[in-house]
Amino acid sequence: MACSQPQEDPTTVNVVAEETVVHLPSWSDNTAKESIVQFVKAVTTEGSADFVPIGDRIAVFDNDGCLWTEKPYYFQLQFALDCAKELSPSHPEWMDIPVMKAAVEGDFPTLLSFGEKGILELVMRTHSELTGEAFSEKVVAWIDTAKHPQTGLKYNEMVFQPMLEVLDYLRANNFKTFIVSGGGIDFMRPWAEEVYGIPAEQVIGSSVKAVFELRDGKGVIVKKADLDFIDDKEGKPVGIYQHIGKRPIIAFGNSDGDLPMMQYTTSGEGKRMAVYVHHTDSIREYAYDRTSSIGRLDKGWDEAIAKNWVIIDMAKDWNKIYPAQ
Amino acid sequence: MACSQPQEDPTTVNVVAEETVVHLPSWSDNTAKESIVQFVKAVTTEGSADFVPIGDRIAVFDNDGCLWTEKPYYFQLQFALDCAKELSPSHPEWMDIPVMKAAVEGDFPTLLSFGEKGILELVMRTHSELTGEAFSEKVVAWIDTAKHPQTGLKYNEMVFQPMLEVLDYLRANNFKTFIVSGGGIDFMRPWAEEVYGIPAEQVIGSSVKAVFELRDGKGVIVKKADLDFIDDKEGKPVGIYQHIGKRPIIAFGNSDGDLPMMQYTTSGEGKRMAVYVHHTDSIREYAYDRTSSIGRLDKGWDEAIAKNWVIIDMAKDWNKIYPAQ
Repeated sequence: MACSQPQEDPTTVNVVAEETVVHLPSWSDNTAKESIVQFVKAVTTEGSADFVPIGDRIAVFDNDGCLWTEKPYYFQLQFALDCAKELSPSHPEWMDIPVMKAAVEGDFPTLLSFGEKGILELVMRTHSELTGEAFSEKVVAWIDTAKHPQTGLKYNEMVFQPMLEVLDYLRANNFKTFIVSGGGIDFMRPWAEEVYGIPAEQVIGSSVKAVFELRDGKGVIVKKADLDFIDDKEGKPVGIYQHIGKRPIIAFGNSDGDLPMMQYTTSGEGKRMAVYVHHTDSIREYAYDRTSSIGRLDKGWDEAIAKNWVIIDMAKDWNKIYPAQ
Repeated sequence: MACSQPQEDPTTVNVVAEETVVHLPSWSDNTAKESIVQFVKAVTTEGSADFVPIGDRIAVFDNDGCLWTEKPYYFQLQFALDCAKELSPSHPEWMDIPVMKAAVEGDFPTLLSFGEKGILELVMRTHSELTGEAFSEKVVAWIDTAKHPQTGLKYNEMVFQPMLEVLDYLRANNFKTFIVSGGGIDFMRPWAEEVYGIPAEQVIGSSVKAVFELRDGKGVIVKKADLDFIDDKEGKPVGIYQHIGKRPIIAFGNSDGDLPMMQYTTSGEGKRMAVYVHHTDSIREYAYDRTSSIGRLDKGWDEAIAKNWVIIDMAKDWNKIYPAQ
């Protein structure tokens, strides 16, 4: 309501330059940044052939490796391990279950040898039989205190500053921003709004089944050790369809697990964009792609090259990785 | 940007009275309206003990019988019947399946004798094997033309004007409004934004499974004839938990199928409200409650009375039912 301020002469304002300066300060002036800015300009300019109404400006983001670091292993795996250790005294039977024994003992090589199925079993056994609220409190207590084994930073300090800026930039242009992650939906929701500005209802992820119960006359949700949905690979567009019901116009990811989400996004009519974060910075973060067991970018890389998708070179395109740097 | 208009003196404005006049014109000045207004005032007044931050102002609404009419039977059932008739020439095998035969022949007594399971089979067989976009177009084509057998109105003209006003009123007070319906999520999403102002991503309902496919290089979602989730009864709080991840502070419903959603909503800490629409108007709409096969309000009624929930008497509390009246 700046009624007393002089009206700006619109002809003197370079809109793109202004947005660039204000919104993406941690980005180098390279192709990746310019592509994102040009896309946003195209879909938000009324009268443009590429104009997209506000309600259809849906942007989706992978989480692990796209909005925060995922090395040396998914952060939620560390949370599950910490839960396993904490809960193990009341679960002596876990020592007879190989994957749980490995988790309780912190034996990563054995744990990882069980693959995704093993991780899933660990997560389901350690994340269930709690009410929704109790689980949320547990996640918050962990994320507020646990520290990354290599950087010593809290995990939520290892979010990518340039991606926070993209989230803000898109929202400033009336996009609705969603997380679409293979990680646990209930693991991300308790802190996603504070850290990413993304409210719980815009977080999509893998889930266990939940049931409604009346306990002492109070209605509660109880999480069960039973798989509900895996929001990864071909599951990502399905999760988008079931949760959002609209096809996104821009998708950000970093691995082959994000490829179907990007195919789905870019298959819609009108202007669309897919953006891969390429981990190229072994000094400030990690460098990996085609052969990494976590966050592998192989088929996705080939398709990104073939289809001329945007690829962010972390080392060259980002002048800052984490907010505190 | 009404810069040239005089500033109002805030001390001369009676906020509650103004809201009442502006936002709920189709409501009689009875207890139901006053209760809703007082609730909204309490949770939105900064400094009040009942104040709720904007992001937690989650309002959930049943659809059938709460936002629009559900008699003589759920509107989606008519859509499924129309689909069955249209598709039957290419599905001769349906004549050997009793529920499908009844549907194709428009034999309601037989169809309804199969109960919920029969309706579910009909819906799954007629709503599947289409892409998400193709199904959405089909719904829009139907809702734009089909007419109610008794009123002759289009179905989306049989939404309740007083409830549209509640939706607007809550949104004007920074609530986020969600539909939580036993009806099909994909049946509501294509028109919910235009009719209710509720975008697709805030519609929760029953769903069939969906898969991602590449067809001619284009990524599409295909609906399958396989049940994914029933968003009714105890499923409603589960749907709320999985989709929203927050406990609502106000819930509107009209039947026993909404009771768990209301128990869940009112079990949270702080000020909460549950509101039942009671169908008492046999002249302008329908009158039914404890013994109705569709929209039964029996256990819910007893609990509403015991817990002093708000009950809307349609005949007395609403001076208008449908927008065109």
